[in-house]
Amino acid sequence: MDHAVTKPHEQLAMHLAPRMAEVNTLIRDRMASRHAPRIPEVTAHLVEAGGKRLRPMLTLAAADLCGYAGPFDVHLAATVEFIHTATLLHDDVVDESAQRRGRPSANLLWDNKSSVLVGDYLFSRSFQLMVETGSLRVLDILANASATIAEGEVLQLSASRDLRTDEATYLQVIRGKTAALFSAATEVGGVLAGAPEAQVDALRTYGDALGIAFQMADDLLDYQGDSTATGKNVGDDFRERKLTLPAIKAVARADGDERAFWSRVIEKGDQREDDLAQARALLEKHAALEHARADALAWAGTARAALAQLPAHPVRGMLEELADYVVARIS
Amino acid sequence: MDHAVTKPHEQLAMHLAPRMAEVNTLIRDRMASRHAPRIPEVTAHLVEAGGKRLRPMLTLAAADLCGYAGPFDVHLAATVEFIHTATLLHDDVVDESAQRRGRPSANLLWDNKSSVLVGDYLFSRSFQLMVETGSLRVLDILANASATIAEGEVLQLSASRDLRTDEATYLQVIRGKTAALFSAATEVGGVLAGAPEAQVDALRTYGDALGIAFQMADDLLDYQGDSTATGKNVGDDFRERKLTLPAIKAVARADGDERAFWSRVIEKGDQREDDLAQARALLEKHAALEHARADALAWAGTARAALAQLPAHPVRGMLEELADYVVARIS
Repeated sequence: MDHAVTKPHEQLAMHLAPRMAEVNTLIRDRMASRHAPRIPEVTAHLVEAGGKRLRPMLTLAAADLCGYAGPFDVHLAATVEFIHTATLLHDDVVDESAQRRGRPSANLLWDNKSSVLVGDYLFSRSFQLMVETGSLRVLDILANASATIAEGEVLQLSASRDLRTDEATYLQVIRGKTAALFSAATEVGGVLAGAPEAQVDALRTYGDALGIAFQMADDLLDYQGDSTATGKNVGDDFRERKLTLPAIKAVARADGDERAFWSRVIEKGDQREDDLAQARALLEKHAALEHARADALAWAGTARAALAQLPAHPVRGMLEELADYVVARIS
Repeated sequence: MDHAVTKPHEQLAMHLAPRMAEVNTLIRDRMASRHAPRIPEVTAHLVEAGGKRLRPMLTLAAADLCGYAGPFDVHLAATVEFIHTATLLHDDVVDESAQRRGRPSANLLWDNKSSVLVGDYLFSRSFQLMVETGSLRVLDILANASATIAEGEVLQLSASRDLRTDEATYLQVIRGKTAALFSAATEVGGVLAGAPEAQVDALRTYGDALGIAFQMADDLLDYQGDSTATGKNVGDDFRERKLTLPAIKAVARADGDERAFWSRVIEKGDQREDDLAQARALLEKHAALEHARADALAWAGTARAALAQLPAHPVRGMLEELADYVVARIS
C-alpha cells in the first residue's frame, strides 16, 4: 500500500476497520425503534450515506493512540456520529421566510417536523450511549460540547447577516458548527483511555484546531473552489448571505462604497447577477482569501503541534497527516 | 387558609415556594448565553409565562417527601422544566404541508429555525444541569425518558392519522408526550434522596400514571369541554386530525358507514361543517367519552395507590389530591 497516494482518513479507516465495523453495527442497532419503526427509514439515508465517518474515527483513533482496548470507544464513536447526524437533520429545518423566498421543497429531504423529531430521537439515543460508559467526565465533556454546538447555531442565526460580525464571533460560530464536536470526539477518547491530563489536553486542542482548520478551508472553498472538489457550488454561502471568514476580512478593509455593496448583498439580501463576481473581486483586492488561507494553515499547524504530547504510534502519524490534509484542499 | 378551595398544585406551590424560587433563579441564570444573547429573549416568553410549573414541582415534592434536603433537587427541577420547554419549542415547528393548509404564520411564536435551535440549546443546558448532580442513575433515567419522549413524538406523526391506531399505541404516544417526563421528574427526586427501591418504584409509577391520567383528561376535554376551562377550543384535535382516545374507542366500535366517516375526516382530512357534531354523536352512541373517562380515573387511582408506599408527610397528601385533581376536570 502506498501511503503517499492514500488519503489520511482512508489510512485511518483501514487501520480502524474492525472497530468501525462494530461502530456501524451499534449505530444500526440503536437507530432502530420498537415503537416508531419509521425512524430508521429517515436516518438510514443519512447515516448509511457513506460519509467519511470522520468524527467516530477521531474517537476510535484517540482511544487507540492512548492505549485503550475497548469496549466503550465504540459507544462514544456511535455517540458522536448520532450527534452529528442529529445536527444535520436540525440544520435541514427551514423557516417560513426561506420557503417564501422560493426554496423548492423538493430540496428538502424530509419535512420539517420529521427532521426535528428524528433529530431529537438521535440525540436521546446518543445520550443513552454515553451514559452506558459510566463516565461522568465523558458526560460532562459531551454536555459542554452540546451547549457550544447549540449556542453556535443560534449565534449564526443573528451574526451571519450582520456586517458587524467580527473574526472572534466567526470563530465562536465555527466552533459550534464543527470544532466542538471534533474536539469532544478526540478528548473523550483520551479520557476513556485514562490518559494523563497533558495528553487529554493535547487531544482536545488537536480536535478543536482540526475542526477550525477544516471549517475555515470549507468556507474558503466556497469562494475559490470548483464544485467537483467540494460537492457544493461556489458562492452558496454568498447567495445564502452567510458572512464567513473571507467576506469578514474584506468587510473589515472595505471603503464606503464597498461597505455599501456588502450591506446590500448580505444584510439586505438584494443580490444581482454580477454580485458574486464583484464580491470575489473585493476579496482579491484585500487579499482576503490569502489571509483566510494563512489562518487555516496556522490552525492546522496548531493541531499538528498538539500531537507532540502524544505517544509515538502509527495513529499519531495518521492524525498529523490528517491535519495537513484538511488544508491541502486550499493550498 | 382553606385547603378545600385551594387547588393541589397551588398547595404544592406554597409548600415548595422557597425551593421554587431557587429553581426560578437557576432557570434564569442558565437560560442566559454569553455567546448568543438572543436566546433568553426567545425562551423567556415560554419559561416566564407563568405556567403551573407542575414538572419541577413534582421533582421538588418527590425529593422532599423522601427526606432530601438539597441542593440538587433544584438542578433537576430546572432540568425537567428546560426539557419541557424545549419540547414545546420543537412542537411549535410546523412542516410545509401545515403551512400550505393555511396555518397563519402569525400563529407561530417564532420561526421554525429559532424554535429548533433554541430548543436544542435548552436540551443541552438541561444536560449540563443533570451532569452536575454527579448521579449516573439520574442520567440514565433522564436519558431513557428523552428517548421515550422522542419516540412518542415520532410515533404520533405516523399513528395519529391512521385508523389502525389502537389504545396500546395511544398509550405509547401519551407516555412520550406527557407521562415519561412526569415519571422521570418524580423518580429522580427519590433517587436523589437515596430512597429505598420500593419508594423509587412508587414515585416512578405515580408520575407515569399521573401523566397518563392528565393527558387522557386533556384529550377528553377536547371533545367535551368548554374553551374557558381548557384554554383550547373544543374540537382542536379533531380538526388537526389527531386520533386520541375517545375517537379510537369510537372507531373500534364503528360499523361500515361510521368507519367511512372516520376515514374521510381523519385519514383523508376532508372535513365539512357538521363533521365535529357528527363525531361527537358517534362518541355518544358508543359511550366513548364515558369509557375514556373511566380509563383516566383508573390511572388516577393507580397514581394515588402508588403513594401508599411513601412516607406519611404533608406532601404525600398534596400529591394524592393532585391525582384526583387532574381528573376532577372531567368528572
